[in-house]
Amino acid sequence: MTQATAGVDLGGTKIQAVVVSAGEVVGQSRHPTPNTNAADVVAEIVAAIHSALDAAGMTTPDLRAIGIGSPGSVDVATGHVSKARNVPGFMDDVALGPSVRAAFAGTPVLVDNDVRAAVMGEFRKGAGRPFRNFMGVFVGTGVGGGLILEGELRHGRGNAGEIGHTTVKPGGRRCGCLRLGCLEAYAGRMSIEQTARHRLEKGQKTKLFEIMERKGRDRVTSSVIADALDQDDRVTVELIDEAVEALGVALANAQNLLELEAIIVGGGLGDRLGEPFVRRVEQAMVGNLRFPEQPPLVLGTDLGDLSGAVGATVLIEYRS
Amino acid sequence: MTQATAGVDLGGTKIQAVVVSAGEVVGQSRHPTPNTNAADVVAEIVAAIHSALDAAGMTTPDLRAIGIGSPGSVDVATGHVSKARNVPGFMDDVALGPSVRAAFAGTPVLVDNDVRAAVMGEFRKGAGRPFRNFMGVFVGTGVGGGLILEGELRHGRGNAGEIGHTTVKPGGRRCGCLRLGCLEAYAGRMSIEQTARHRLEKGQKTKLFEIMERKGRDRVTSSVIADALDQDDRVTVELIDEAVEALGVALANAQNLLELEAIIVGGGLGDRLGEPFVRRVEQAMVGNLRFPEQPPLVLGTDLGDLSGAVGATVLIEYRS
Repeated sequence: MTQATAGVDLGGTKIQAVVVSAGEVVGQSRHPTPNTNAADVVAEIVAAIHSALDAAGMTTPDLRAIGIGSPGSVDVATGHVSKARNVPGFMDDVALGPSVRAAFAGTPVLVDNDVRAAVMGEFRKGAGRPFRNFMGVFVGTGVGGGLILEGELRHGRGNAGEIGHTTVKPGGRRCGCLRLGCLEAYAGRMSIEQTARHRLEKGQKTKLFEIMERKGRDRVTSSVIADALDQDDRVTVELIDEAVEALGVALANAQNLLELEAIIVGGGLGDRLGEPFVRRVEQAMVGNLRFPEQPPLVLGTDLGDLSGAVGATVLIEYRS
Repeated sequence: MTQATAGVDLGGTKIQAVVVSAGEVVGQSRHPTPNTNAADVVAEIVAAIHSALDAAGMTTPDLRAIGIGSPGSVDVATGHVSKARNVPGFMDDVALGPSVRAAFAGTPVLVDNDVRAAVMGEFRKGAGRPFRNFMGVFVGTGVGGGLILEGELRHGRGNAGEIGHTTVKPGGRRCGCLRLGCLEAYAGRMSIEQTARHRLEKGQKTKLFEIMERKGRDRVTSSVIADALDQDDRVTVELIDEAVEALGVALANAQNLLELEAIIVGGGLGDRLGEPFVRRVEQAMVGNLRFPEQPPLVLGTDLGDLSGAVGATVLIEYRS
């Protein structure tokens, strides 16, 4: 009889699982997300939890509950997920919670939004601990965000925190959501890749895709972008400059409206580019502040790529 | 012995005073703001309160307290005001609260931010009554805003709600705050006037300033703009189109971040242009929403140009 919980962060590239006991991560594992169908993805989530349990020297009966942070539209009451564009088979309705519960002998499973989980992870276990008012901004494949206001996660009508789809340039670059000029169209990894490919096709020179192939990747990952920056690849440098400017505008707009204590910048790209990137974003933000003499603290995450998985275990505490 | 309170909205053009008893406005008066110095402005505030008392058939001993909503930087603890660009002499420190208190035989005076007062007025006595989560946007000389989140006025560090200085067009029109592309640079009356004058000087035809002179005004007031729109003055039509577009971007950005129940649009220009303007702003906003199928209600104010003065009496209840 223990109080261990498992947390899972489901992403388009990877499935990150952790086992938490007495407030500490005692086991973790990372599995690639299958690029086939929903059944395979669910099986891989189950496998990732088993790997994390193994790493912790535990088995299913040691688990009190499992939390899963998922992209897409999440029905917290039923554990069903849909409209997750980046996860194979998850555009359709998937009974994620019930399936995982069945695989773990009826252990309760809580499914919630992945960004919400990550924000709660940083709030309770990471860089957000000192604050009652902050925003988490996760710069990865897309750009997600979440708000802690007066010590509470802001839900709104269920989708509050969508900083990635605030407009930073009316009539600007086309976003995955089909609107023009969203923050995500400039700072999301997917959009950066597409824009770089477009520029390559128009004859601009870039080493970005050579680096991608040399690293054996089939997409421009955060580490591919980091390598291209290290090599001063002009197209990549320009695209990251534009991402920083866009983040500066969006973060300042949020700050001017809400006067937060801090803004925490994470996500695959944010974590990989690290402190220098966070400082550049801060500088771009300050230039757009109404009261630049009173900026919020701008920080990286404490938990890095574990924010979401650890946060999924934090959400369990809040729902039970 | 009654429970009457007086409320004052101090603006660059006018001083609006009300007397409220048993929750009803029982007297009101409006005086022009002197364009001379701070002492004259304070004297005129005192005169406006006396006029409102007269209208209510009351005298100083009937007043329990006086609330004043002021632009600029307000020290709520001391009642001092400074940095109010549009009020003569109020760039320097003015002992507004103590001076008014002395003029009313020691009656307690509360001074707070004018926009905060207006938001509280609509929240408790106006269009915001049904909601626990809304934003008030006041389009006047400048553009102010305030947020009610989970039934509480958001203060932040003291200046939350500055939607007027969120960026709607990076590198765009110069704002009074000296930054480029703020909402206020497109939707504020002062900026609209300056831009129209600039276009006139560059040879574009506009009747805006003839209408202003014919109405005996020395600035482009909201009613001057309304008349020019009625006459299909092309420059004015274009500038209001741009104001609507800018409001659409800024309101959608706030909505995407916060998922509010409603947005209330008021202020001198918002109230004067009325329902057709509010509907246009709503339409422009919906086009920029992440979830256009779940828009907030977009409403005009209930209290019109009394939002601020009535709100100043509401703030008294909250502080005492």
